[in-house]
Amino acid sequence: MSNMPFELSALADLISLPARLPQGDPQAAEAARARQNALTKPPGSLGRLEALATFMAAWHGTDRPVINKAQALVFAGNHGICAQGVNPYPQDVTAQMVANFEAGGAAINQLCRANGADLSVVALDLDRPTGDFTEGPAMSEAETLAAMNRGAAAVDPGADVLILGEMGIGNSTIAAALAAAIFGGDVARWVGPGTGADAEGLKRKVDVIERGLARHDGLKGNAPALLAALGGREQAAICGAVLAARAACIPVILDGFICTAAVAPLHGASPALLDHCLAGHVSAEPGHRLLLEAMGKEPVLSFDMRLGEGSGAALALGILRAALECHNGMATFGEAGVSEA
Amino acid sequence: MSNMPFELSALADLISLPARLPQGDPQAAEAARARQNALTKPPGSLGRLEALATFMAAWHGTDRPVINKAQALVFAGNHGICAQGVNPYPQDVTAQMVANFEAGGAAINQLCRANGADLSVVALDLDRPTGDFTEGPAMSEAETLAAMNRGAAAVDPGADVLILGEMGIGNSTIAAALAAAIFGGDVARWVGPGTGADAEGLKRKVDVIERGLARHDGLKGNAPALLAALGGREQAAICGAVLAARAACIPVILDGFICTAAVAPLHGASPALLDHCLAGHVSAEPGHRLLLEAMGKEPVLSFDMRLGEGSGAALALGILRAALECHNGMATFGEAGVSEA
Repeated sequence: MSNMPFELSALADLISLPARLPQGDPQAAEAARARQNALTKPPGSLGRLEALATFMAAWHGTDRPVINKAQALVFAGNHGICAQGVNPYPQDVTAQMVANFEAGGAAINQLCRANGADLSVVALDLDRPTGDFTEGPAMSEAETLAAMNRGAAAVDPGADVLILGEMGIGNSTIAAALAAAIFGGDVARWVGPGTGADAEGLKRKVDVIERGLARHDGLKGNAPALLAALGGREQAAICGAVLAARAACIPVILDGFICTAAVAPLHGASPALLDHCLAGHVSAEPGHRLLLEAMGKEPVLSFDMRLGEGSGAALALGILRAALECHNGMATFGEAGVSEA
Repeated sequence: MSNMPFELSALADLISLPARLPQGDPQAAEAARARQNALTKPPGSLGRLEALATFMAAWHGTDRPVINKAQALVFAGNHGICAQGVNPYPQDVTAQMVANFEAGGAAINQLCRANGADLSVVALDLDRPTGDFTEGPAMSEAETLAAMNRGAAAVDPGADVLILGEMGIGNSTIAAALAAAIFGGDVARWVGPGTGADAEGLKRKVDVIERGLARHDGLKGNAPALLAALGGREQAAICGAVLAARAACIPVILDGFICTAAVAPLHGASPALLDHCLAGHVSAEPGHRLLLEAMGKEPVLSFDMRLGEGSGAALALGILRAALECHNGMATFGEAGVSEA
């Protein structure tokens, strides 16, 4: 599977996909664990760094995983739901921020440079926002598949790790809608200030999402269809990129609330579809922690960030690199002539 | 003060020191905060990264702080308390690990390389362990001052940030003793497994520390004297390095439980002596979280590490660098032509 470009031809195929996708290599993980225990340190004393090295070993299929090429992809989209006044920024800001990414002026540019990731930005039909989900499905199946396959095609099959991020005015409302649709519970639990909604704005977001969920109530339990009904192009592209990365055994670092909610439909289809994904951080957006708990993902970092763009994921890349530097560069007790306990 | 090498001639001078040391520059911090609010992101959305940039601005005295030179210092010492059987590793391991640092095989070597810090290791009279604190003071005042001044002299006054770490078989017992002596409470609260003590080992550590505290009960409230009575050379050197860094306005990143406990006597003398210090991480050693709470320090990272050597501090350096990359490299709303909320 990893030699062919990944492409999805029907949303329903998501359900049968896990059986056809590669798994992590347990023998490589075990060999990496054995190496960690031989390195000059008390066993386990590098904590989470040891687990990160073992995770990378499993997906790279070797006890000595390395990151030569780190790819960062930021997908941008616009949303019909903005007509409902869910965001304090004008929708033009999506395109303005894409221009800022291309000019190198955004946070994600600095974080990718600092941690050695090649950044590409994929703007998805910004002049053609998706439908308002309170009035009908945000996207048709064909639009959803097209966005997913654009996301998949953007993945460099030679990357050693993939950072995912997004930009899209209004998409914290999209994210809360997807999270509520997949994981249920009170809508208000999933709604947060996003880029800066006040109490009135929060109430409006909750109301809009409740109307959207009522509108698409018949899709309950059909995760792929919920992605089309409530999602946006950047969410679909993130799902496609996650699947293409999986097909090529590339570990993924997810970003914050919106990026994590984007893959909630994959989790809804089958949690195993996200086995190769790390949560780069837990953001200040209150729904993010709930979402990570629901998905069983422990975030790498916790800095009260709430920017998106892949910023938390790119920051976590530095930690992953450090974990592998220790894993590959440290001497063993035998090599260093250090006595064991 | 910052043009003269820092040297301490009497432990009692620690008490009057704060008034003679430089403070962070509130105007530079305010200007950095204003810059953060003008950058192309929702205000506050970089979370802790914004606070780190502002902290660096205050100590560098400029709204655009940079890290050109990062210095890492690891101090190593041996401890008479090991005669009481408080550690599963033989005491020779201290010198063996110093050799491993010098050969580049330890975790700290990889983490310093990964995050661009120049590492120096200072071995402090390893063949002459300090006294057993259950029998008398670990060090005389002269020995304590000598170690403090060796630590101070090791600081590069041209560094933009200083990472501190330690190595010393038995020094998690020293750390718990210092923490208990300065902050009080049940000794057991401060005692953890260190490099791998079992239940029997933990009991022995608690007993040894209780006997040490009883032996030096007359020093209660005299923080500088407690450093001499219970500490080791690497703890004293860390204190000296922290003060020399402060004299030169160099921000410091402290490491884990042992490094943090080493500066507890400075906190006991005056909490303001640590205003320029960040807690790089909170370790898996249970006393570390208590210690950080007692000192009012919020750790940058939390990865269940418990290795020492400066490893958690060196890892946090990568985050600090990323914070400054964002702070200095991002475009403002005006520069990028992005609309504000």
